[in-house]
Amino acid sequence: MTEPFITRQLPPVEVLAEEHLVQIEDNADTILERVGIDFRNYPRAHELFADAGARSYGDRIRFPRGLCRSIIQQHAPSEYVQHARNPERNVTIGGRHTVFAPNYGSPFVYDQDRGRRYATIEDFRNFVRLASASPHLHHSGGTVCEPVDIPVNKRHLDMVYAHLRESDKPFMGSVTAGSRAADSIEMARIAFGGDLRDESGVERTVMSSLINASSPLVWDDTMLAAAEHYAAANQACIISPFILAGAMAPTTCAAVAAQTLAEAMAGMAFCQLVRPGAPVVFGSFASSMSMATGAPTFGTPEPAMVLYVVAALARRLGVPFRSGGSLTASKVPDAQAAYESAATLQPTVLAGVNFVLHAAGWLEGGLAIGYEKFMLDADQLGMMATFVRGVDMSPNGQGVDAFLAHQPGQHFLGTGHTLANFESAFYRSALADNSSFEQWRDDGAQSAADRANAAWKQVLRDHEPPPIDDAVDAELRDFVARRKSEMPDEIG
Amino acid sequence: MTEPFITRQLPPVEVLAEEHLVQIEDNADTILERVGIDFRNYPRAHELFADAGARSYGDRIRFPRGLCRSIIQQHAPSEYVQHARNPERNVTIGGRHTVFAPNYGSPFVYDQDRGRRYATIEDFRNFVRLASASPHLHHSGGTVCEPVDIPVNKRHLDMVYAHLRESDKPFMGSVTAGSRAADSIEMARIAFGGDLRDESGVERTVMSSLINASSPLVWDDTMLAAAEHYAAANQACIISPFILAGAMAPTTCAAVAAQTLAEAMAGMAFCQLVRPGAPVVFGSFASSMSMATGAPTFGTPEPAMVLYVVAALARRLGVPFRSGGSLTASKVPDAQAAYESAATLQPTVLAGVNFVLHAAGWLEGGLAIGYEKFMLDADQLGMMATFVRGVDMSPNGQGVDAFLAHQPGQHFLGTGHTLANFESAFYRSALADNSSFEQWRDDGAQSAADRANAAWKQVLRDHEPPPIDDAVDAELRDFVARRKSEMPDEIG
Repeated sequence: MTEPFITRQLPPVEVLAEEHLVQIEDNADTILERVGIDFRNYPRAHELFADAGARSYGDRIRFPRGLCRSIIQQHAPSEYVQHARNPERNVTIGGRHTVFAPNYGSPFVYDQDRGRRYATIEDFRNFVRLASASPHLHHSGGTVCEPVDIPVNKRHLDMVYAHLRESDKPFMGSVTAGSRAADSIEMARIAFGGDLRDESGVERTVMSSLINASSPLVWDDTMLAAAEHYAAANQACIISPFILAGAMAPTTCAAVAAQTLAEAMAGMAFCQLVRPGAPVVFGSFASSMSMATGAPTFGTPEPAMVLYVVAALARRLGVPFRSGGSLTASKVPDAQAAYESAATLQPTVLAGVNFVLHAAGWLEGGLAIGYEKFMLDADQLGMMATFVRGVDMSPNGQGVDAFLAHQPGQHFLGTGHTLANFESAFYRSALADNSSFEQWRDDGAQSAADRANAAWKQVLRDHEPPPIDDAVDAELRDFVARRKSEMPDEIG
Repeated sequence: MTEPFITRQLPPVEVLAEEHLVQIEDNADTILERVGIDFRNYPRAHELFADAGARSYGDRIRFPRGLCRSIIQQHAPSEYVQHARNPERNVTIGGRHTVFAPNYGSPFVYDQDRGRRYATIEDFRNFVRLASASPHLHHSGGTVCEPVDIPVNKRHLDMVYAHLRESDKPFMGSVTAGSRAADSIEMARIAFGGDLRDESGVERTVMSSLINASSPLVWDDTMLAAAEHYAAANQACIISPFILAGAMAPTTCAAVAAQTLAEAMAGMAFCQLVRPGAPVVFGSFASSMSMATGAPTFGTPEPAMVLYVVAALARRLGVPFRSGGSLTASKVPDAQAAYESAATLQPTVLAGVNFVLHAAGWLEGGLAIGYEKFMLDADQLGMMATFVRGVDMSPNGQGVDAFLAHQPGQHFLGTGHTLANFESAFYRSALADNSSFEQWRDDGAQSAADRANAAWKQVLRDHEPPPIDDAVDAELRDFVARRKSEMPDEIG
């Protein structure tokens, strides 16, 4: 039984009282009003915000208190369906739902056999295949790794094609230029039968794409152009401040949360001014840093706290929330990688994050995606999906009859209640070794990473691309070939 | 700055509505009333419960609904101070406090150099030293490992002596026979100056000891004898059902919770009947199992859910709660070990557990304690302590002035607010590697376990036992020698 996405039965964990959340919202308004946000080299944003009642000072826009919030709350949907090529894989982003997507943006890959190296388009396809095959990932992601063997101005074509060809799960479009967003939209249109519009004439949302702020308090023209293309086409924008606390923001949780809210509200309001009602996701990526070296650190308690706080702010705003993942600074899939990933993933799930990028594969502060790490993370995602179902309080779940049919000291192994429930009683990890020491030793004394190494190879051996209409596939290939022929190669 | 224990600023995470908790309490009363609990070969328990209004049927005692609860709520303290030999290390167990104690009960040890082998008294002393040195462990624990090189009937003497000599943190007494509990109490009396009584004439609580049920629904005479000795001396008993769901209980969460509550209430009520007001801790150890082999499994979502539910039941009952730890089935300190440990430890902390046994070192389903695992776990405990402090909402924490002094796009690295907060801004892991890939590679490409290996050796090299009065030490040694001479060796 594979769910296309998770629907949580548990309430989100709250770490702050309402009055403190209100205070942080007030601080965000102070930032928006008194400091403002730079929308750099993008006159269209200034025009739209001027019409809405904000004032520009060069690149800077300062916002009357409450303006961004009211624009968002007036128009942005609290949740939306992202359609997949296979309708059974459609996901609902927002509300009580959680969607897990793979790692994003790594120039390097790691596997135990070949070590760390630059990523290629074949690695890219492999991770799309692994995500496609996993019952625990609901989304194909975007730039799962950077295929550095492809010219930088043409990668997006091969990446979008790989998502459409090797998977039928929902995916993300390119954001590295307005034209690449336009190409992504065009390819999606081809893949979805030539027209994204539904019977009511509104474009279906078929991509959710990552729009990163240049924190602190800056949106740049590249990201704004991509966001404008996507929003205009009713495609979702994940508006994500990217904060290394201490560098791109103050060090403290409440300050990072206020800045994140200010930046995200400005970006989401921009999308709503481009097209009222276009889906937006409130994104937050926040990490701590090493005092000694300035390197980003992961799995520390402070960013987990930020995550809980910003999730609550997103709920109050009424929009879907993206944050978290399986983050680590480790270079290899060792205990550090697992501890740090769990220290982000559990808050991610408990806080009720709706869209989880980097849910599987992340290594080395995002510089690398690991094959073994991907498999280990995906197994954890399966556990989270089980956890959030909560407690079964049905008569069978309470099991009172089982007790009444039982004597003290008598084991429950062979009883009716156990036999009736055993098959689905406990999450079964594909990678954990629960055997005796002797059995484990005789089986080769493998580490979890060793088992994951065998597992990803098996998945790739077994992979078959989901079916696609031959004519659609030909049209996609033609589009990719034509667009590539129109541009000279650019070196990234 | 080392805290002797943690005081949580965060509210506990609740996974069930009150009506469902009430239902589980009702089910526990049904078990106590209609099935009952065996108190085997221990007439004293039957006498005490008969006087309190329960009825015996052979070994079985059946309890009127609400009886155990009312005995506990009438007498048992909601929290208590466990005194340490060094008063600065006293811990408060209960309420908003959390105390981390090491692994308990493993016959084997593991380290990267020598692999897995039987534990010795020198291993025992080493783990007491490691716990003593760690700022993240608040308690010295009890049987941190089984020193199998010492005769089974004399181990407790060497173990208690090691806790008193190599550490000045609070510790646990022996429970494997009534006489060994009595020896533990006598040694504690010597160590605490010859008399445990405070100025009001009441014995100070200087041990919290682990009393395990023989689930399902059985208390045996060994554990009851130890509990009676401790309770009579005002020493704390951690009354712990030990449940492998599917074997010692039904498989479902609500059933495991009801059974745990029934068993624990019966045990705690027994202690209160022995001595009203003696400290008791509601314990719960619950794991899932492998369908394929019947082996216990750890880090799965189902036991985490049980933990949250039983923690809420303990709060409603009004007694301190023990559960969780850093549990894993892995044989080595790899990614499985870390993922599984985190999947128990985070619920442990978020659920507000008061006393956490097995917080560091556990491997192989408890059969082994690992040196590297101990260090890695302890580092995670430090992160938890930081996390539960919650969000600093002071003006400095909110950092509004920092924003007002700042321009968009300008980094915060050198600003006043960052400089004022940087030193304590983020948890600094002693074992995580956050350096670049190249730096890490040039440093030897060490795994987290490799770094932990170096770390525990360094701690042991640096260890100096805390000071102890020479006369007290001599008296303790004399006691151990005398008791050993009074018994022939027994082979375990």
